Amino acid sequence: MKRNIAVLQGDGIGKEVTRGAVEILEAVAQRYGHDFEFQYGEIGGGAIDSTGSPLPDETVEICKNSDAVLLGAVGGPKWDNQPAHLRPERGLLKIRKDLNLYANIRPISYYSSLSESSPLKKEFIEDVDFVIVRELTGGLYFGKPSERVEKEGKEAVVDTLFYQKSEMKRIIELAFSLASERKKKVTSVDKANVLESSRMWRETAEEIAKDYPDVILEHMLVDNAAMQLIKNPKQFDIIVTENMFGDILSDEASVLTGSLGMLPSASISTNGPNLYEPIHGSAPDIAGKNLANPIGTILSAASMLRLSFGLEDEAKAVEQAVETVLEYGLRTGDIANGQPTITSTSEMIAEIKANL
Amino acid sequence: MKRNIAVLQGDGIGKEVTRGAVEILEAVAQRYGHDFEFQYGEIGGGAIDSTGSPLPDETVEICKNSDAVLLGAVGGPKWDNQPAHLRPERGLLKIRKDLNLYANIRPISYYSSLSESSPLKKEFIEDVDFVIVRELTGGLYFGKPSERVEKEGKEAVVDTLFYQKSEMKRIIELAFSLASERKKKVTSVDKANVLESSRMWRETAEEIAKDYPDVILEHMLVDNAAMQLIKNPKQFDIIVTENMFGDILSDEASVLTGSLGMLPSASISTNGPNLYEPIHGSAPDIAGKNLANPIGTILSAASMLRLSFGLEDEAKAVEQAVETVLEYGLRTGDIANGQPTITSTSEMIAEIKANL
Ligand SMILES: CC(C)[C@H](C(=O)O)[C@@H](O)C(=O)O
Ligand SMILES: CC(C)[C@H](C(=O)O)[C@@H](O)C(=O)O
Repeated sequence: MKRNIAVLQGDGIGKEVTRGAVEILEAVAQRYGHDFEFQYGEIGGGAIDSTGSPLPDETVEICKNSDAVLLGAVGGPKWDNQPAHLRPERGLLKIRKDLNLYANIRPISYYSSLSESSPLKKEFIEDVDFVIVRELTGGLYFGKPSERVEKEGKEAVVDTLFYQKSEMKRIIELAFSLASERKKKVTSVDKANVLESSRMWRETAEEIAKDYPDVILEHMLVDNAAMQLIKNPKQFDIIVTENMFGDILSDEASVLTGSLGMLPSASISTNGPNLYEPIHGSAPDIAGKNLANPIGTILSAASMLRLSFGLEDEAKAVEQAVETVLEYGLRTGDIANGQPTITSTSEMIAEIKANL
Repeated sequence: MKRNIAVLQGDGIGKEVTRGAVEILEAVAQRYGHDFEFQYGEIGGGAIDSTGSPLPDETVEICKNSDAVLLGAVGGPKWDNQPAHLRPERGLLKIRKDLNLYANIRPISYYSSLSESSPLKKEFIEDVDFVIVRELTGGLYFGKPSERVEKEGKEAVVDTLFYQKSEMKRIIELAFSLASERKKKVTSVDKANVLESSRMWRETAEEIAKDYPDVILEHMLVDNAAMQLIKNPKQFDIIVTENMFGDILSDEASVLTGSLGMLPSASISTNGPNLYEPIHGSAPDIAGKNLANPIGTILSAASMLRLSFGLEDEAKAVEQAVETVLEYGLRTGDIANGQPTITSTSEMIAEIKANL
């Protein structure tokens, strides 16, 4: 199989971790007889420095011409005081819109070998296995107006939470179709006791549920969801929610199992290439020190193999190799939890490759 | 001292827990020579049933004529399928507006006797002691438009996040003044990388910080705050944030220490009586069974003594009595964590009274 992969390394540890994923993808190609070509594009702070834009047109072109996009991470203190339109994160928001990445999928899974690193007691997180499906191109993130206004002569400001019903439909449908292949339960999170948009969301979920008689639909208010994630995360299978609630809840969920550095994500496009990236940020404090955990990005590459290329065996092989090195006890600093020997980024990559 | 207290029992366990707080307030009055008069008003589902409105005008009058308001909880399955304007929670939203309750204050504290009930490992929550200050009358909760719209012939919906700068000022000022009497740190939570309202919020916080040179101001993005609450809750002193973020984060925070049923809250008015209520809901499943934990409401009454009446000694006496019965090992079901003997609501109230 021949595939073009766009690689956007970004800032901070982005370079190190994407390098790891590319090495693993190359090893997979060799082993299974595929031909993966990699095209590199700039995004984030580095792109601002070299082109004046956090997402140059050239990068968008490279992505549109690819079969899938691999992203590292963006941002760093150097760009923290820039005006809003020259911030690295703008590159992320823009690529989501430009590639129509309407759904962000984040599996939260428990690694028994890592329970020590979790803030939660083992009995609360053991066997946790759920997926957050976050709407990614609507809501407060893109609604207009978003501006300063004067009201009765006083300074004020407005942001807008806007959704088309069709945008709700497609993401909720995706959630149901994922649930029907898993534990058959969708928890739709909203704030229907306050927001009109949430009431439309809830109705839409009810409508779609009719097409999936074997999947249970449950509604949960966002404040309660923020509690339930901590009190009883095992209850969840698929959580689906709008953009801002999803931003907050998926970050909350990512620290439950103590394995933030290991969590992958996939952003699904309506019509073009999907984008795969780890959940963690650019970690400027450890950038370039060979300390970053490459597993989140390597598992994102595994998702790419599965979801974009349909290469289930290859995806499983990568995931299995990761499990194996963890069982050996290899740990980068973020998951070492006091263990004396720490594995470097490059060793971790080499070991995963060796265990493919 | 003579004071009028409005009591809104509400639904579910609301009656039982407010009864407990009233008994304690009566005992305090007798012991310290005060004269507290109680006026009862309806709110929530019960009010809908008897008057057709979740917050009858008469209740608002009773509150406005009082020196402080004590609230139980509202809501229950009976009213879950009512149209929005006939839902018990509407009573809550309306009373916030009618009494100008612009700030909700929720202290999150650790009880060493309850560490067993927490989902978090002890080392993460030991000595946690922070306060969430949530804006309560602005933002997405009250912004207009909030309605279905048609856009290019398609079904859509809009909600509005609106703030006046003056609304941001008064709540952030309150946060700084609280911090200056505590650990002298304010964490202002926003989403300034996405929302214009958050950028105004951040600027406002910077302006107010200038008047409090001994208080440290830190900005944190809401998604990161959702993580940090779990990863390292000890870092916080005062967290201040807008209405919707505050709704989500304060509920998240309330389950960290395992003592949800014990947490009080105070809502501060710009110009009239403050309102005091426990954080927990109406728990219809255990209503009327003498099983509810009355401590959240009793500690809310203690906050009333302190904040509305300036009775610091009396407030401390109530808090001390609660600590004492917990040290004896008395536990309602919610905090029993497997302990065989469970204390009933009425016994718990009697024991706290006896230890005043
Ligand atoms: C950087 C920021 C704009 C972004 C978001 O809020 O979506 C990030 O938090 C994320 O979740 O990918
Ligand atoms: C019942 C609901 C409208 C309310 C809110 O969202 O403010 C509740 O969750 C709260 O926090 O008091």
